[in-house]
Amino acid sequence: MHSIEHLKDFTYGIFKKMGCAHQDATTMADILVAAEERGISSHGMIRIKDYYQMWEKGRINIHPNVRVTRETPGTAVVDGDGAFGMVAARRSMEIAMEKAGQVGTGWVSTQNSSHFGIAGYYSMMALEKDMIGVAMTNANALVAPTHSKSRMLGTNPIAVAIPAGQHPPFVADFATTPIARGKLKIKGQKGEDIEEGFVQDAEGRPSRDPDVIKQGGAILPLGGDPLHASHKGYCLNSVVDIFSAVFSGANFGPFVPPQVAYLDPPDQQTGRGLGHFFGAMRIDAFQDKETFRQRMDQWIDTFRQAESAEGQPQVKIPGDPEREMEQRARKEGIELLEAVRQDLREVAQQLDVDYNL
Amino acid sequence: MHSIEHLKDFTYGIFKKMGCAHQDATTMADILVAAEERGISSHGMIRIKDYYQMWEKGRINIHPNVRVTRETPGTAVVDGDGAFGMVAARRSMEIAMEKAGQVGTGWVSTQNSSHFGIAGYYSMMALEKDMIGVAMTNANALVAPTHSKSRMLGTNPIAVAIPAGQHPPFVADFATTPIARGKLKIKGQKGEDIEEGFVQDAEGRPSRDPDVIKQGGAILPLGGDPLHASHKGYCLNSVVDIFSAVFSGANFGPFVPPQVAYLDPPDQQTGRGLGHFFGAMRIDAFQDKETFRQRMDQWIDTFRQAESAEGQPQVKIPGDPEREMEQRARKEGIELLEAVRQDLREVAQQLDVDYNL
Repeated sequence: MHSIEHLKDFTYGIFKKMGCAHQDATTMADILVAAEERGISSHGMIRIKDYYQMWEKGRINIHPNVRVTRETPGTAVVDGDGAFGMVAARRSMEIAMEKAGQVGTGWVSTQNSSHFGIAGYYSMMALEKDMIGVAMTNANALVAPTHSKSRMLGTNPIAVAIPAGQHPPFVADFATTPIARGKLKIKGQKGEDIEEGFVQDAEGRPSRDPDVIKQGGAILPLGGDPLHASHKGYCLNSVVDIFSAVFSGANFGPFVPPQVAYLDPPDQQTGRGLGHFFGAMRIDAFQDKETFRQRMDQWIDTFRQAESAEGQPQVKIPGDPEREMEQRARKEGIELLEAVRQDLREVAQQLDVDYNL
Repeated sequence: MHSIEHLKDFTYGIFKKMGCAHQDATTMADILVAAEERGISSHGMIRIKDYYQMWEKGRINIHPNVRVTRETPGTAVVDGDGAFGMVAARRSMEIAMEKAGQVGTGWVSTQNSSHFGIAGYYSMMALEKDMIGVAMTNANALVAPTHSKSRMLGTNPIAVAIPAGQHPPFVADFATTPIARGKLKIKGQKGEDIEEGFVQDAEGRPSRDPDVIKQGGAILPLGGDPLHASHKGYCLNSVVDIFSAVFSGANFGPFVPPQVAYLDPPDQQTGRGLGHFFGAMRIDAFQDKETFRQRMDQWIDTFRQAESAEGQPQVKIPGDPEREMEQRARKEGIELLEAVRQDLREVAQQLDVDYNL
């Protein structure tokens, strides 16, 4: 078990040594360790080796000039300048919030960025400013649109954070697919089949093999099969892709560059890097602050008190599971998998940073 | 078969006779017949009898003063003043677009409204102004959150319309459930079972009976069962409810009044009427107009050219199916079900309007 502070110090040291400015290394540490705290370890320190290798290959600009290239009072396009996604994304969300401070709401589409970790982090930045936060991103293609044989879209997540009063905030943060890549990997390692409705094989046939992704298969959109309205998951996933990449001038759909060093970017580019989309809305744009918070508390109370179906657990408020993990992590610390520690030891050695995990 | 003009004239006459102002009766006719044209007849003229009966019971304000009650340069709260949903919604979307004209983007939450028909209509209003349009609404509770025994949310649809160049626009318009109420009704009438993953019975157990909704059952959120990530559909559905009703001060979740006259509103109210949420973003806030349109064309070409899985139809662009229906309706006219014509004949008689369908 490691304390949060200890993991942040280690992560900070890694990115500082790569050449990141103090503030950027802090951002990397904050966001990667936040993923660990919230129990989304697939987007946490397990990714450091990939990020390191991307940097080593010259695919990350360690001294980026993240800047607005087009704007109105309520919107902006941000050029991430090839930065680590977290650096471009945090700044983009700040810009959305600055605009919301001025005109009630701000929406920012970001190009020329890379993998940004957990979407929820950026949406939650809005909470301390008495704002609603929205964050989404496209990602390299793993998902087949309804009826498609091939992968055309990423798992393209959406996060929405809404402040409450007495209650903790509402935080929805979800990929627009029924299963995450990480869960498939674990099932594959255990040699277990999965149920239908999650993946298809390289010919586009329904499959129960979690390893099918490695053999040209694809993840299905939220909804699963066409009968269960996978076209709605495809619609939602497409909206994320378009808002993130068509708006900003990033690569969309199948042209998004892979976020690992051992896969080369596609020959054809339709823009620069990958794209994100952020939104902020002031709660006092809609109600006075206290009324808004009371109404959200009332919403949360209503849903928390819903009667469970027989044999089912309590009805949750979006954000509950991650907050429970967070509370436990803060009390008990965070456990890293041996494989992750092995990767981190290697990265530390190559960068000549003390390894102490 | 009836021509679009003929259906609009008839519908206009009905609402004019109820006392609607010329512009409001035109709005009702435009939006109800647009639903017929787009093949979404569950939200078309079949609803006129319900609307008539709601009005007859005094639950609709036929001379509403739809107005902004709070605003910033980029946001507004609109009081629908008990109007027909279409009247409140069209005005609200206009306000969102006016704000986008000023500051790049505009977002409006509307309270004290009622059933607004097809969400897609409002999102598509943005297209002719070179804007992206977003529309959503809450609705009376039919959907059980993940693990819940009871109905707590509506089928809460989301629509997003994005202009293209040579290609017709991208228009996603979908309920956040795997099945629509209308489809369940048809299956029930045919005496057919449905597959699992759509509904649950009054005890919260999975069911294959399409009539279970009439016996206290519920529709499941998009995703279906918890295994297939119905919690993501629940998250999305909740966001629509909160943006539409908590932001605006409308009734949320289980408190949304039923949109039929034979069911009374719940005793407890948490706001006024039902709620909607609208957004508009100028495309030139993100790219110059021509570049934006070219990039959307490129996106659409990419996805239209995706290879289909064996035995599957062509990959569609969101909006394709509705546009095909629209083209056919404009050429061949629109057929109304005998049951709908019977209802309309009754309404016409009661209002002393010529019946000619």
